[in-house]
Amino acid sequence: MDRPEIILAPGPTPIPPEVLLAQGSPLVYHRGPGFGDIMREVTGRLKELYRTDADVLLMTSSGTGALESAIQNCFSPGDEVLVPVAGFFAERWASLARAYNLTVHTVDFEWGQKVDPARIAEALAAHPGTKAVLLTQSETSTGVIQPIQALAAVANDAGVMVVADVVSSLGAVPFAFDEWGIDVALGGSQKALSASPGIAFAAISPRAWGVSKTATNPRFYFDWAAYAKFAALKDPENPWTPAISVMQGLQAALRLYFQDGVQAAMARHQTLSIAVKEGAKALGLDLFGEGLEDNWTVTAIRAPEAADADVICESIRRDFACVLAPGQGPLKGKVFRIGHFGYFSELDIIRGLSALEMTLGSLGHPVKPGAGVAAAETVFMERR
Amino acid sequence: MDRPEIILAPGPTPIPPEVLLAQGSPLVYHRGPGFGDIMREVTGRLKELYRTDADVLLMTSSGTGALESAIQNCFSPGDEVLVPVAGFFAERWASLARAYNLTVHTVDFEWGQKVDPARIAEALAAHPGTKAVLLTQSETSTGVIQPIQALAAVANDAGVMVVADVVSSLGAVPFAFDEWGIDVALGGSQKALSASPGIAFAAISPRAWGVSKTATNPRFYFDWAAYAKFAALKDPENPWTPAISVMQGLQAALRLYFQDGVQAAMARHQTLSIAVKEGAKALGLDLFGEGLEDNWTVTAIRAPEAADADVICESIRRDFACVLAPGQGPLKGKVFRIGHFGYFSELDIIRGLSALEMTLGSLGHPVKPGAGVAAAETVFMERR
Repeated sequence: MDRPEIILAPGPTPIPPEVLLAQGSPLVYHRGPGFGDIMREVTGRLKELYRTDADVLLMTSSGTGALESAIQNCFSPGDEVLVPVAGFFAERWASLARAYNLTVHTVDFEWGQKVDPARIAEALAAHPGTKAVLLTQSETSTGVIQPIQALAAVANDAGVMVVADVVSSLGAVPFAFDEWGIDVALGGSQKALSASPGIAFAAISPRAWGVSKTATNPRFYFDWAAYAKFAALKDPENPWTPAISVMQGLQAALRLYFQDGVQAAMARHQTLSIAVKEGAKALGLDLFGEGLEDNWTVTAIRAPEAADADVICESIRRDFACVLAPGQGPLKGKVFRIGHFGYFSELDIIRGLSALEMTLGSLGHPVKPGAGVAAAETVFMERR
Repeated sequence: MDRPEIILAPGPTPIPPEVLLAQGSPLVYHRGPGFGDIMREVTGRLKELYRTDADVLLMTSSGTGALESAIQNCFSPGDEVLVPVAGFFAERWASLARAYNLTVHTVDFEWGQKVDPARIAEALAAHPGTKAVLLTQSETSTGVIQPIQALAAVANDAGVMVVADVVSSLGAVPFAFDEWGIDVALGGSQKALSASPGIAFAAISPRAWGVSKTATNPRFYFDWAAYAKFAALKDPENPWTPAISVMQGLQAALRLYFQDGVQAAMARHQTLSIAVKEGAKALGLDLFGEGLEDNWTVTAIRAPEAADADVICESIRRDFACVLAPGQGPLKGKVFRIGHFGYFSELDIIRGLSALEMTLGSLGHPVKPGAGVAAAETVFMERR
């Protein structure tokens, strides 16, 4: 286990050397001008990524902590929320809302399906007391990118707030906070941006700020008002001591990301996604999930007859130090997942596909050596 | 602001190069054997530091997040708690408890006083419905180490739970979770251990686990049961993606700490504390707070007539890149604070005292150049 593993999971991702150096550099004290500069730069770039003029707050936690901040700051016990459930992370929204005694209306889809906006519109009509929909843009458990622009439109038509988990999609696939009428969107440092985990983001619309003033759910560490107060200082700060080193790395990661630019990053994610999908198909594997052409963050692949998906993940990690992600919930053992957002080049994908075809071969799945790699190369050459 | 600043504040502290390298190394994926090894080692060493056989959980947040976890997991709305208040961090306990609709009985002391166990015993007798006392071992705002062994004894006599903020004291001054009858103690990575901020700890007694089973305060990200479940895996994990890089650094920091050993670290903190205090006195400054001989974490110093404390902090930072901490609350402008726990050597203190005497001189306070340094050197030579 001592060699660095090749992480092909949907976050954390491999961390670029520039980011490692930044997070391994002496700490910038978290109160005063030096850290204020970092806060300003990171917040500014995130606003660009969110495509918003709204406030973006930075919290020290995983993405789940940021999701909880939305439940705490926007709602009171008994408030009705609607959650379309088509995977593990949508279920997390429902669990979180229930933990805070909200009334949760779920609209259930099969795992792997795209959420149908028409069914959400019907559900909103059936539950006119609903205050918000809780959405998941990248349902990482299935690889599916949900149509949250259309879902937000339906919610806005019904006068209902839109709260979106964009943890594993922000920076990977198109998103537009202001234009799409989103009220709250929660992101994380360790996904498409290839920083280390530890910092989460919340973009907050004026409507959400308004709602937060009267929401009675208890909160302290994730109290948005405290973050806003400290972010408004001449040298912006966090209310509590933040994960300074992770912030330093995030600053470096955003510089790398914006060096190429948002469009280039998205195009890269799309190309890598197509290459992984074509490579898997060339190995005789079936892909999982609807809307494959949109799913640029992670590809879910059905395990072949020869091997359980968990066995594939264990074997490839043991033999090639490649970390893939196993299936979650009802997909455990049935699918495995390859992440392809963040700091990945074409050759990282080639490396992963090569390890996959050798692993499948050793597990008894019939593969022609190099077939997956060849399919990916063809994609890369065509899209250059 | 580009040169690394010399942090002499009470956390974060300067980070040792070994720790910087570890947190700047490629990430160990957070699910599986590699990270399991880190979890086991870090948790084991922390138990030794806490002097406990109880569970120690690791959360990605600041110390304040860990404090909130105690309020969420141990209490229900309306529960009565008692908080002795003698500074900023004790007030934070009271605010946190009020945010969760607990009934808070405060026993107020002047900032800088030691909390008197007899008054706590009286207050517990006057409020027989009290479920817990919320204590602060190192009241960082005043430099005072509170007598929490005696306070815990009083609480235990009254059959009341003991919840202790040891964020800035764990590893700096003596503490014994099991022997002193503590139920919950919350710590942080960025204090005496000299790791980067981002990881907080909770030690939890069997009694506190019992109470958590029926406590109804809402919780999710900080739900101890989730942490315990994932910590019990063959390869221990976190329930949510943790600040992996900070954990890697914390592992390295604990190795350094235990190389010398707990007793050596405590003795060092004591010596550095005495040197700072003697140095300040030799500069004609008055020290703030009771029980100076016990206060090994941070020294609070009254500003002289010549200069406001905030001006001293700003000047020394601007001129010498030395970060001291300003006064908080009613002490703002009146005291400044020098932290001396963590990765500090004798010469780091000399450097800080030299910067302080030059700064005071330039602000018009009469100093004999070298007087503070000489007093500190004398302390170091005597205690070798």
